[in-house]
Amino acid sequence: MSTQPSTSADPSALAGVPVPGLTTVENTDPAALAARCAELTRPAYPHQEVYGQYCTIHEYIDCPPDQVFDYLRQGHHLEEWTFSLRNFAPSGTPGTWVGDDLLEARTRIFCRVEANADARTVDFHCAWDQGEQLWMIYLMRVLPAESVLDRPGSVVTWTNCRHPHYDANPRPDLAPDPDRTWVGAYWDLFYAGHTVEMANLKAILEHRHRNGLPLNVQPRAAVAR
Amino acid sequence: MSTQPSTSADPSALAGVPVPGLTTVENTDPAALAARCAELTRPAYPHQEVYGQYCTIHEYIDCPPDQVFDYLRQGHHLEEWTFSLRNFAPSGTPGTWVGDDLLEARTRIFCRVEANADARTVDFHCAWDQGEQLWMIYLMRVLPAESVLDRPGSVVTWTNCRHPHYDANPRPDLAPDPDRTWVGAYWDLFYAGHTVEMANLKAILEHRHRNGLPLNVQPRAAVAR
Repeated sequence: MSTQPSTSADPSALAGVPVPGLTTVENTDPAALAARCAELTRPAYPHQEVYGQYCTIHEYIDCPPDQVFDYLRQGHHLEEWTFSLRNFAPSGTPGTWVGDDLLEARTRIFCRVEANADARTVDFHCAWDQGEQLWMIYLMRVLPAESVLDRPGSVVTWTNCRHPHYDANPRPDLAPDPDRTWVGAYWDLFYAGHTVEMANLKAILEHRHRNGLPLNVQPRAAVAR
Repeated sequence: MSTQPSTSADPSALAGVPVPGLTTVENTDPAALAARCAELTRPAYPHQEVYGQYCTIHEYIDCPPDQVFDYLRQGHHLEEWTFSLRNFAPSGTPGTWVGDDLLEARTRIFCRVEANADARTVDFHCAWDQGEQLWMIYLMRVLPAESVLDRPGSVVTWTNCRHPHYDANPRPDLAPDPDRTWVGAYWDLFYAGHTVEMANLKAILEHRHRNGLPLNVQPRAAVAR
């Protein structure tokens, strides 16, 4: 299946080592699997079950995947598709930028983009107040809709994982104000908030692609200069 | 934000071109955003809304990400962590393998793995009955739990998109039996079925990692020889 064969296995030792707890055709009747699947499948799922620990959203965007990727990987575009991230400038650490999260007064957000053009992944490594540990990670991937949905354009997936720092600010001493709401207080609204921001992303890219406009813009700071 | 600057933009033309339909701090009061988010956030979400068009599941696995990636990218391991994919052998097309999906009698499944070690993405491009159009795409990614959850191990995400061929078999003439259930009839059970298979993956990798066993095994066909 892979062009690189498995080399580290010792089949004589492994073939006979059973792994406990597997559910496979060898030990489970298809009817039993069907019953188990029927149990797991429900008419509806509570918010905490779907978005409590991980939050993934998906959106179709009528714009070619390489162009969507190229737009996303340029982190300053966060200034137009997010609700409240603005005014990015180099932070002093190469590759890391710092801007304002206007959701809260005097709140700085640090951000580094890690992108992979082949897999079309774009990961935003961010944090409020400090840039040493970028623990708020926004994981995005651009999929060719041609392959996955048999239509032109892109599917964008966006995942966040509930890092423990969402539940407890590791550096409360850096808050601009002791009463400032911590970013983790918004975790339960990530599904909704990211849905609004994904709609912005879709609106921007589809508007420009449809009208033959360039997709990318300069950083606002550069335009203002 | 990116080391590669935006070059294709014409800021003089773009700065003044508004994109209709955006929701941002510039045009939306934070209270209005909060109200919109409260509308979108509900106690529970219907199955079709969450898993109707896209199906993503997530799982924590106590095994290092590079090892989880290396296990997944070797497609013959599908023979142990899936419920019913077995007996893979080269299909004749380089990189594409063919095996049995024992979920249905005499059903062949073709599969090609596309993996990216840097992004740790592993995509299984599959199809029942034929290998010319591999339209069933299982998109997985291995994340370092150290970064996203502040603990050792991995988080694995697994996404499927509802390709139209799930709803209508493009090549019914290739079915081994006209009464054979089409793979798309199982779409609504993907959340459940993939949850069962992800539990297998977790059980295998955690069992071997915990006990210091090699994670990888030889293809069953090779062991049987």
